[in-house]
Amino acid sequence: MEPGEMAILEDIPTPALVLDRDKLLGNIEQMAARADQLGVTLRPHVKTPKSIDVMRCLPQRHAASITVSTLLEADYFLRHGIADIFYAVPFAPDKMPFVGDLRRRGAEIKLLVDSNDAARATAAAAAREACRVAVVVELDVDHYRTGVERGDPDFLRACQTLKDSTHTEFAGIMSYGGASYLCSSETEIADLTEAHRLAAIGALDTLGDAGLSAPIVSFGSSPATFFAHRLDGFTEARCGIFLFQDLFQTGLGTCTLEDIAISVLTTVVGRNEKQNRVIVDAGGLALSKDRSTAQSKRDAGYGLVCDGDGTVLPDLFVAAVSQELGLVTTFSGRPIDLSRFPIGRKLRILPNHADMTAAAYDTYHVVRGSPEVVDRWTRVNGWFPAHAPSRKRGA
Amino acid sequence: MEPGEMAILEDIPTPALVLDRDKLLGNIEQMAARADQLGVTLRPHVKTPKSIDVMRCLPQRHAASITVSTLLEADYFLRHGIADIFYAVPFAPDKMPFVGDLRRRGAEIKLLVDSNDAARATAAAAAREACRVAVVVELDVDHYRTGVERGDPDFLRACQTLKDSTHTEFAGIMSYGGASYLCSSETEIADLTEAHRLAAIGALDTLGDAGLSAPIVSFGSSPATFFAHRLDGFTEARCGIFLFQDLFQTGLGTCTLEDIAISVLTTVVGRNEKQNRVIVDAGGLALSKDRSTAQSKRDAGYGLVCDGDGTVLPDLFVAAVSQELGLVTTFSGRPIDLSRFPIGRKLRILPNHADMTAAAYDTYHVVRGSPEVVDRWTRVNGWFPAHAPSRKRGA
Repeated sequence: MEPGEMAILEDIPTPALVLDRDKLLGNIEQMAARADQLGVTLRPHVKTPKSIDVMRCLPQRHAASITVSTLLEADYFLRHGIADIFYAVPFAPDKMPFVGDLRRRGAEIKLLVDSNDAARATAAAAAREACRVAVVVELDVDHYRTGVERGDPDFLRACQTLKDSTHTEFAGIMSYGGASYLCSSETEIADLTEAHRLAAIGALDTLGDAGLSAPIVSFGSSPATFFAHRLDGFTEARCGIFLFQDLFQTGLGTCTLEDIAISVLTTVVGRNEKQNRVIVDAGGLALSKDRSTAQSKRDAGYGLVCDGDGTVLPDLFVAAVSQELGLVTTFSGRPIDLSRFPIGRKLRILPNHADMTAAAYDTYHVVRGSPEVVDRWTRVNGWFPAHAPSRKRGA
Repeated sequence: MEPGEMAILEDIPTPALVLDRDKLLGNIEQMAARADQLGVTLRPHVKTPKSIDVMRCLPQRHAASITVSTLLEADYFLRHGIADIFYAVPFAPDKMPFVGDLRRRGAEIKLLVDSNDAARATAAAAAREACRVAVVVELDVDHYRTGVERGDPDFLRACQTLKDSTHTEFAGIMSYGGASYLCSSETEIADLTEAHRLAAIGALDTLGDAGLSAPIVSFGSSPATFFAHRLDGFTEARCGIFLFQDLFQTGLGTCTLEDIAISVLTTVVGRNEKQNRVIVDAGGLALSKDRSTAQSKRDAGYGLVCDGDGTVLPDLFVAAVSQELGLVTTFSGRPIDLSRFPIGRKLRILPNHADMTAAAYDTYHVVRGSPEVVDRWTRVNGWFPAHAPSRKRGA
């Protein structure tokens, strides 16, 4: 922040996104220790913070390479000096002009495919763009989302296509333990991670038999890494949500409510005794419509309610939202003491899913426990850089 | 668009927001006719389009005054020449410096409160800002969200406070028929509207007995207006979603799938025969996590799937999303003919809730039925103008 710009949370127009740097640092320390213990390097997933300032809080050994979910993130972090970038979303070949632009500016970008068709389309697009790109193949271990099973002949075909094409390089394999979000215990998550590890080792055997080697063997999801018993065989772990944590993560047991580093600052704009409601100016756009905790041990509605200093106010939650309003009530049905919630009182809401909530904001108001705003950090939302390379039809 | 910038949808990087101008015009024509028939003027709710270009498609008689959900919208539309602005969200008094700025620039802005406490806090904030503002009081008719019941002594107290304070003007009353979203038939919605109308008339009597008059008697929600039998007594109808329509609205019967004017352009990035899935690059951020159709007659998941030209592809829907990916499958369980969905094929997704989906984008790619992009319109997301007035603690 510029000198003279010091503020306290009370002064920030709401809704606004608050980031507690001390909690962020605590979350980083814990995950970095876990990664060191497991002998794996983090390739943090920047889809959570989308901010270089957040990434600068990581120890260098776990921040040299990153995972991105959009080409805008790739562009932004390259401009901030991070060149080793894994774009870990199955690639749409017509986005290759953006990738060519990043390559020419020095990005060591890795793309992702999960079929031989996609590998061929990616190789053809790279040829049209006259660039050479590294491509990772995604393994499907648990049918959670994307990937190709290692027993499927298409797996080896895809890897071979990438190795053989002039404009691609076979960079390795990855899997995503997103199914950890469906697990109901630490043991289940650890077992899931082990299934991914064995699948990766099996896939490496398959590749070895065919004379192919995989420099990258990448694994992902914060909870799947956090609860892993071992990660030998993987060269890196892609984790993002651990930075901020959220209510869904508390349900998985990777953190406590006190570890959640982001919250939405909001203002009381109404009260209704008969309906036992406090109305705040944070609704579906400010909190997101994510309802992931509906599947958790404790359904938190659209978020739990904290005091302006971040202390959780027991029994209160955001039960319903409209576009710009949240309706706060009690889990227990006990009446709210409305005298404690005058019009204008500031509150903070803990989100179900940090990534979805943060995406509504371009600024983090950074605090360190106290309500003093010590910094303002920006984040990049959207999908494409403003200076998009010109694209010609059929080019 | 600038000359030489002509494009077709195939050329637009995905995800991207598409607006069909012909459908927009059709929706406007239908609602304008309905309003004319009911003898009421529209005060369109710009929280849906957040774009002056969309508003310019309305007939002038229904576009002279607007409803906003954020002070950024108020600022933006004032800059585009619309001064009669109703900020129809219960007001947080510490936002008054923004309102003062708007007032000094000529905005005839109306604020909203739903209690005497809020009326007093708003009057005090206006005094501190040394401006005079018009304020509307919200009636609670059906306990859907906010407002004060007309039988509650606080209703009259709030109106009287606004009339008596030097820095406020009592501008009238409003109610919101948002409970129409919970109705299961047109008749139920019409009955709800009639209950709101009778409550407004009753409130006007209460006011009249106290020597107060209400220049504005405002009613809202697109479906509640659309299915109304009569609106006599109301001076205006606040409607927004009718502009774009969406899947939730088809469930209410206010439109057909063919009327939905916005969709998310996306690209096939993966296929999985065994899981019967097509994977597209539109996920939770591109579509929003809104699941309003879960309460509809037909749960559409995260959206229905159309061809690149906007034709609905029967039986397909987005069953699950992660941050940047959507998993498309069939309602029936019948296998998808994957040969029709090669990597790179463009599709369009119809949203559950247009407002939530559009909020992820700053640009509408405007088409007119055909895949040719005839224009690009911008929209304003977020809450506050960049040139926020400086605010001093305690000021």
